[in-house]
Amino acid sequence: MPVEAPTDRPIRVLVWGENRHEKLQPNVAAIYPDGMHATIAEGIRENLGDGANVETATLDDPEHGLTEKVLANLDVLVWWGHAAHDEVADAVVERVHRHVLEGLGLVVLHSGHWSKIFGKLMGTTCTLRWRSDRDRELVWTIDPTHPIAQGIPNPIVIPEQEMYGEFFDVPKPDEIIFVSGFTGGEVFRSGITYRRGFGRIFYFSPGDQDYPVYHHKDVRKVIANGVEWVRTVRADRATPTLLRYDRDDFYTGHGYEGAMHN
Amino acid sequence: MPVEAPTDRPIRVLVWGENRHEKLQPNVAAIYPDGMHATIAEGIRENLGDGANVETATLDDPEHGLTEKVLANLDVLVWWGHAAHDEVADAVVERVHRHVLEGLGLVVLHSGHWSKIFGKLMGTTCTLRWRSDRDRELVWTIDPTHPIAQGIPNPIVIPEQEMYGEFFDVPKPDEIIFVSGFTGGEVFRSGITYRRGFGRIFYFSPGDQDYPVYHHKDVRKVIANGVEWVRTVRADRATPTLLRYDRDDFYTGHGYEGAMHN
Amino acid sequence: MPVEAPTDRPIRVLVWGENRHEKLQPNVAAIYPDGMHATIAEGIRENLGDGANVETATLDDPEHGLTEKVLANLDVLVWWGHAAHDEVADAVVERVHRHVLEGLGLVVLHSGHWSKIFGKLMGTTCTLRWRSDRDRELVWTIDPTHPIAQGIPNPIVIPEQEMYGEFFDVPKPDEIIFVSGFTGGEVFRSGITYRRGFGRIFYFSPGDQDYPVYHHKDVRKVIANGVEWVRTVRADRATPTLLRYDRDDFYTGHGYEGAMHN
Amino acid sequence: MPVEAPTDRPIRVLVWGENRHEKLQPNVAAIYPDGMHATIAEGIRENLGDGANVETATLDDPEHGLTEKVLANLDVLVWWGHAAHDEVADAVVERVHRHVLEGLGLVVLHSGHWSKIFGKLMGTTCTLRWRSDRDRELVWTIDPTHPIAQGIPNPIVIPEQEMYGEFFDVPKPDEIIFVSGFTGGEVFRSGITYRRGFGRIFYFSPGDQDYPVYHHKDVRKVIANGVEWVRTVRADRATPTLLRYDRDDFYTGHGYEGAMHN
Repeated sequence: MPVEAPTDRPIRVLVWGENRHEKLQPNVAAIYPDGMHATIAEGIRENLGDGANVETATLDDPEHGLTEKVLANLDVLVWWGHAAHDEVADAVVERVHRHVLEGLGLVVLHSGHWSKIFGKLMGTTCTLRWRSDRDRELVWTIDPTHPIAQGIPNPIVIPEQEMYGEFFDVPKPDEIIFVSGFTGGEVFRSGITYRRGFGRIFYFSPGDQDYPVYHHKDVRKVIANGVEWVRTVRADRATPTLLRYDRDDFYTGHGYEGAMHN
Repeated sequence: MPVEAPTDRPIRVLVWGENRHEKLQPNVAAIYPDGMHATIAEGIRENLGDGANVETATLDDPEHGLTEKVLANLDVLVWWGHAAHDEVADAVVERVHRHVLEGLGLVVLHSGHWSKIFGKLMGTTCTLRWRSDRDRELVWTIDPTHPIAQGIPNPIVIPEQEMYGEFFDVPKPDEIIFVSGFTGGEVFRSGITYRRGFGRIFYFSPGDQDYPVYHHKDVRKVIANGVEWVRTVRADRATPTLLRYDRDDFYTGHGYEGAMHN
Repeated sequence: MPVEAPTDRPIRVLVWGENRHEKLQPNVAAIYPDGMHATIAEGIRENLGDGANVETATLDDPEHGLTEKVLANLDVLVWWGHAAHDEVADAVVERVHRHVLEGLGLVVLHSGHWSKIFGKLMGTTCTLRWRSDRDRELVWTIDPTHPIAQGIPNPIVIPEQEMYGEFFDVPKPDEIIFVSGFTGGEVFRSGITYRRGFGRIFYFSPGDQDYPVYHHKDVRKVIANGVEWVRTVRADRATPTLLRYDRDDFYTGHGYEGAMHN
Repeated sequence: MPVEAPTDRPIRVLVWGENRHEKLQPNVAAIYPDGMHATIAEGIRENLGDGANVETATLDDPEHGLTEKVLANLDVLVWWGHAAHDEVADAVVERVHRHVLEGLGLVVLHSGHWSKIFGKLMGTTCTLRWRSDRDRELVWTIDPTHPIAQGIPNPIVIPEQEMYGEFFDVPKPDEIIFVSGFTGGEVFRSGITYRRGFGRIFYFSPGDQDYPVYHHKDVRKVIANGVEWVRTVRADRATPTLLRYDRDDFYTGHGYEGAMHN
């Protein structure tokens, strides 16, 4: 029988940033001089204080900063990527995928909808409708009892943002917390959750590199709430496994020996 | 604007069988002398009559019988595999996956829970608890208004079957139609649905090779109902695509030109 | 075992209208000279043709036109009410509620969100945010594989409408088919489904009395699709009942004889 | 903007028991000499310790012990009733209903499925299949990441229990945490959650008066977990309300003045 997870120690968070726009585009660097990942991490620290230990890693780090050791000592991974999804090594994607199924919490931000890891977890194209034209985004709460919606105004007003609109080709979410409306009239399921294996996933769409969205107080609060929510409540980290159980022995599983011996 | 799908022509169905147990194990060949796929196909014809054109294909066919041409001319694919999931070529899995996202209906049977195509669509391990020990399986309807549950007794009694039990590591189903109970006391979400992209998926767990489950009248009726239900109601087959839309032009999407030009 | 419902006979539909605004407010009468119910009925006939027999009834009819005999011979009830929810007799609400649980399909339109029957089926306040200020409403499809979304442009453009916005206090819908965006930036889950007992429910929000919404081609198509979808696929009409079953007799239920005799 | 709820003070819990079987049936009194409510309360205290202040009330108390003052100072109400559902005053049911919509957490146990308050919140008949014949009940976890499932063996073994079986006529649950299997082969969704208004509801079926189920260690742990989970995370208690909002003023709602003035 599992014991319960200790929730009294700080959450170990890693904010992963692609960090390419910031290096190549002066307008982005002006908004995020230390990289988007740094600003996202700062917003989590601002909200969770001693409740979280927040580190960062980027695409250009060895193994993208996502070694087995790093992942094994992590509670929550926050993912922002956009221009270089294809440069993320498949082996690293497999590794992150396995850890999510074991219980690693995952927060996927904005253009991360098209990342390899999100696509692998969803099984769909994760495509959408978009326009970068300074639309105002209003983020409306449609699930006011959800922990991620606490302390958040209804709506959040983001003065300028990229438009993301429906149809968003993702599996039916376990929960839809936020739906956004844009100046142009488009709507988008902007805050959604999934469970995969023993892991929890929160996707939150605000945050294009061309606008200072991660400096926005309410956006930072949502991301911090998301970090807290995706942290597993299970005590141990383990992949779901196929096991054989003899009749009347409900607790002793036996390993698989191949289909022909069934 | 899409026109509606013609539902007055027969459903084009392909039953795909791995066809290895039947060749290698005399006890299975005794139950299914023409292969499990042939019996499954027969059960669909028995129920849908002129409403369906049912073909079969197997693992050992060229390209496993799942060429682009075959898939493009198909409404519904029924999948049974077990001992040789690994022998299914990745390129074929990619092809089937794309067609499902475009609208091909997919019925996955029994041990197909561990097939490459189901895992790719689910994003999880799809593992479960099992025992092959002649348990009686009772298949209970928990969604009596669902089309797949029509004409089905509550419960279906399957005198002998392999036990599949929880925890079944799949995403939260869109709908849970059937839950099974076994002699040993285990339970299993045995009839579940998903939408992925523009495609519909029905997973139905009864049907181990060691028992004559696909000769069971009610099981055959469920599978036939499933075939009818997964057939898309959309008129055209197309993958969801990422497109840019100018403000106030809701219907003319523009193709993607790369992240740095946003 | 239930036989399947005949779906080859016309759907028997009753459009129920409160019919008060049309009598008392010249601007509404100008848009709907024969009453809103008449226009809604006309739109269903336009789309379903011989596939439906469409009648109408109003609040001022004896028993509001919703006698036991009328309901027992009905497949689908469409409900529009607004200013006089309180005048609907509780006994009639109980009767309609019972029929919905037995399998009567129910389409609830616009301000019907605050009707007694919808509230009784939902168990919540069904309140929302609103403004009548000629907002343009865009109705976006977020479930493109749903039968109700077939033949519908994405989005539907309604030039002028009352704004309905979130938070909409309803239970989590079984399916969210449409989400609307308004000129003011508000969003609303405008097309949602529920199953209650053996009945299906579709709520669709467009349609304020001050705007000619039920003359809109696409709105009429959605309502007609909704009528088809809520029609039960079950063969018989019966309330779910508490029954005792002896061990190993799965099909013969015994009536309840009181809690103290358990 | 709401502030967050303080979760550092003890949860204020009231266990409500009908307390009739215990008075009238010696076999029940032998199992629960102080009443079932007392044993249920004891199990919550055993698990939550200083984290909860647990009181009890019964049907025969004035206003059933559920006055406005009591409810206003409560976080969680636990409900067990069976033989005397009809004796619960409608005015009290209305009051409890309002408080749940405002955020009062509700745990409904076993035969409470047929209570007035549960039926009012669900909108369905809440009927099921049953038999009291010493079936063993196995309670299987199908949502292992849910907080209510933490610290619980999979399965819980209850040596003797009343059988509750499907079809259980309730709305589609927000979450299905547990599914039970019985000696006779029946299955039941035995641990399910709902949100209604701003309130959370957990229904858990084990616990017939004829068996010592509330002395079972794991059952007590589930109920305690349920109490923690249904406690609202919102800071303030208020009913969702219909309000008018002027364009561009998202935060100042105006009260309703009647339908004819829209």
